[in-house]
Amino acid sequence: MERHYDIVIVGGGPAGVATALSAQSTYPGKKIALIRREDIAMIPCGIPYILHTLARVEDDILPDEPLKSKGIEIIVDTVEGRDGNVLLMERSGRISYDRLVLATGSVPFVLPIPGIDREGVYFVRKEKTYLEQLKRAASEAQQVVVIGGGFIGVEVTDELVKAGKQVTLIEKLPHLLPLAMDPEFGEMVEAELKGMGVTVRVGESVQEIVGNGKVTGVRLEDGTHIPADLVIVSAGYRPNVELAQKFGLKYDERYGILVDEYLRTSDQTVFAVGDCAAKKHFFTGEFSKVMLASTAMAEGRLAGSNLFSIKVVRKYPGVLGSFSTKAGRLAFGVSGITEMAARELGIDYIVGTAEAVDRHPGKLPGASKIYVKLLFARYSHTLLGAQVRGGDSVGEMVNMFATMILSKMTDMDIDVLQIGTHPLLTPSPLVYPVLNATVSAILKGQGTG
Amino acid sequence: MERHYDIVIVGGGPAGVATALSAQSTYPGKKIALIRREDIAMIPCGIPYILHTLARVEDDILPDEPLKSKGIEIIVDTVEGRDGNVLLMERSGRISYDRLVLATGSVPFVLPIPGIDREGVYFVRKEKTYLEQLKRAASEAQQVVVIGGGFIGVEVTDELVKAGKQVTLIEKLPHLLPLAMDPEFGEMVEAELKGMGVTVRVGESVQEIVGNGKVTGVRLEDGTHIPADLVIVSAGYRPNVELAQKFGLKYDERYGILVDEYLRTSDQTVFAVGDCAAKKHFFTGEFSKVMLASTAMAEGRLAGSNLFSIKVVRKYPGVLGSFSTKAGRLAFGVSGITEMAARELGIDYIVGTAEAVDRHPGKLPGASKIYVKLLFARYSHTLLGAQVRGGDSVGEMVNMFATMILSKMTDMDIDVLQIGTHPLLTPSPLVYPVLNATVSAILKGQGTG
Repeated sequence: MERHYDIVIVGGGPAGVATALSAQSTYPGKKIALIRREDIAMIPCGIPYILHTLARVEDDILPDEPLKSKGIEIIVDTVEGRDGNVLLMERSGRISYDRLVLATGSVPFVLPIPGIDREGVYFVRKEKTYLEQLKRAASEAQQVVVIGGGFIGVEVTDELVKAGKQVTLIEKLPHLLPLAMDPEFGEMVEAELKGMGVTVRVGESVQEIVGNGKVTGVRLEDGTHIPADLVIVSAGYRPNVELAQKFGLKYDERYGILVDEYLRTSDQTVFAVGDCAAKKHFFTGEFSKVMLASTAMAEGRLAGSNLFSIKVVRKYPGVLGSFSTKAGRLAFGVSGITEMAARELGIDYIVGTAEAVDRHPGKLPGASKIYVKLLFARYSHTLLGAQVRGGDSVGEMVNMFATMILSKMTDMDIDVLQIGTHPLLTPSPLVYPVLNATVSAILKGQGTG
Repeated sequence: MERHYDIVIVGGGPAGVATALSAQSTYPGKKIALIRREDIAMIPCGIPYILHTLARVEDDILPDEPLKSKGIEIIVDTVEGRDGNVLLMERSGRISYDRLVLATGSVPFVLPIPGIDREGVYFVRKEKTYLEQLKRAASEAQQVVVIGGGFIGVEVTDELVKAGKQVTLIEKLPHLLPLAMDPEFGEMVEAELKGMGVTVRVGESVQEIVGNGKVTGVRLEDGTHIPADLVIVSAGYRPNVELAQKFGLKYDERYGILVDEYLRTSDQTVFAVGDCAAKKHFFTGEFSKVMLASTAMAEGRLAGSNLFSIKVVRKYPGVLGSFSTKAGRLAFGVSGITEMAARELGIDYIVGTAEAVDRHPGKLPGASKIYVKLLFARYSHTLLGAQVRGGDSVGEMVNMFATMILSKMTDMDIDVLQIGTHPLLTPSPLVYPVLNATVSAILKGQGTG
């Protein structure tokens, strides 16, 4: 049996879905199939929240309705290989295509720690049945060790401590969120988690996960033993290049499938989008390890429009990296380059910071302190990066920062920005921290700050 | 007695304070005085919230500390006239200056309605003692009529109904927020207020405020009588040009003191900033009636830097108008041009809309529906305006819109914007409404949407 589709997408995560929807709206006449291994797709960013805030794993499902309502066929099966333009499926025979899009995502790093395969050691994977096991294990556990203090490790820790567990969070590097944010922000996250009762150990490595069959704890390199009946490892992800390898496409083990500006692989009929596709850093043009649903979707939308000819010319400066997260009552966000990264890259920068209350007057309900740190290039005055800690408004503030950086706004552009403010929604215009951090950077640049 | 200051600012609102702080940081050696009539300055945008949410009028005070700590002298007195470069003060003699900045603000419109001067009729003025009377009157009132359904009228209504009052809101034009937002948004505000128990009457005018000495109600043009023991009039503001008139500066009664690109009046040693200074519309270059604290402060910062020579070249396209507000549980925001305005201005535009839930998955706590409407120029594809209704994240989303419009981003620029999303803070990247509204506009422009 051989079936034909004009467009076949492999992978049901955000990148695959975005590609399918974009392809359907650009090429309404084409027959489109999306192939995925799992019967049900999860919302990847929501996964930490199945541990406590969401009552059931089902509450984090990525719905099929948007695909089905547009006539996009969903095929649940595994691609085993390729023969010309024909995919060889595990159960459903042969599927031929005119255009193929790989959206195969990423898989968790398995750290080379002795005992990592013990019962009671979990990764933050994306499969529903696995997550159901993890949720059950978490609900039964008393003492949990989380290995890895990046965004996902912090979010998992936040959930577990809210669920009343005794949690130890271990990060090898000297502060939490070590790759994404500057040390002072990592320290704020640490202080917030400690205030909730979490034991945070930064600058420490796990030597062994101990137990007898089932995990009973971890031993650190300094010999400390931390008892645990559950260990969750969140030490990052690597691109899933398995199919690219089988298909003979060019790829890099660490960065992913090599693609051109239009997400085309070394085979012109095959595209790759999302975590599995290699990305360039917006500032240096070098490979970037940033993996984000929002980046994945921007790629998916572009690839979907351009499958049969370049309709949308890309104006894509590389991956910016815009994140936000929450620990306890505090939200954190970042877009662009941190101070740490600027130093590594040899950039001559000026930092401006400001703190304010995010309501005005500050006695209004719901007020939180908001702290903004901006990095400008010393001579071109261009905004390079922004970090923020505050209340929930941080989420959209990060998107304003992304807009500013991508538009190459300078300190002077931001100084005259016409913001909107409201007592119940934002800081006062007099202390609006994005403006005040900018002014502080301008004054420093003039030697008067 | 004659005192001399290098820089004298008249007016203690946000524009005056921003000018003083900017002047002090740019010219640290100069002697600066800020003259204001009131002993205590209020935060203007916070005034509606003294009616209920804030326990005391004192909770809305604009603090003097930022001025005093920088050595800026505050003089509480009234300017009566001018003799050359010497201000003639009501109580404190003569004050000479090298540079004068007028930041005299705006005063409420007094509608020509019979009975407007009755006891129990209040305006939304900015003086503390007046506001204390208003707060007392509001706490004693049972039935309140609010005249004027712009932002302030809506906010006052929202506060009064939360305080348990029986409130009727009357707006002459056919929908609430009639000048700031499109009808569908006004209708959403109306529905929310009605749901809280407010009687909303749009498209109706007050013919008379009735009573015997003290107000007992209002009579509409159709003869309807609405009983009231308190009437609050919020029918807009006009620039306070009183001093400009006395000083012989050029001004326009409706739009304010005429200034050049650098806020200089017809007298080169005198500047005007904030509500009292005439502004140009960012799109048409014609006079604009927009009065906003954020615009005022951008002007103040610029004037403060440039008092003695142009140090900061202005890149100022006119007044954009970025607002946000809240009615009940819903927040509303706008930046740039509405569809209504586009039609009046003869702009060929395309509208894109999208709705989503602002958490992902939507079962996370705190989720609200967010609805975005974007206006693009049909041929240049430039973003002209954005309106939004949603949860509290609307406040910072408006600032992202302002950044996009001021940077002249097109639909294609926004389509590839690298946003950051988070389950607890933003909509899912798959349905992020700013992107989806943009895509819907792009498809419409191609005739496929």
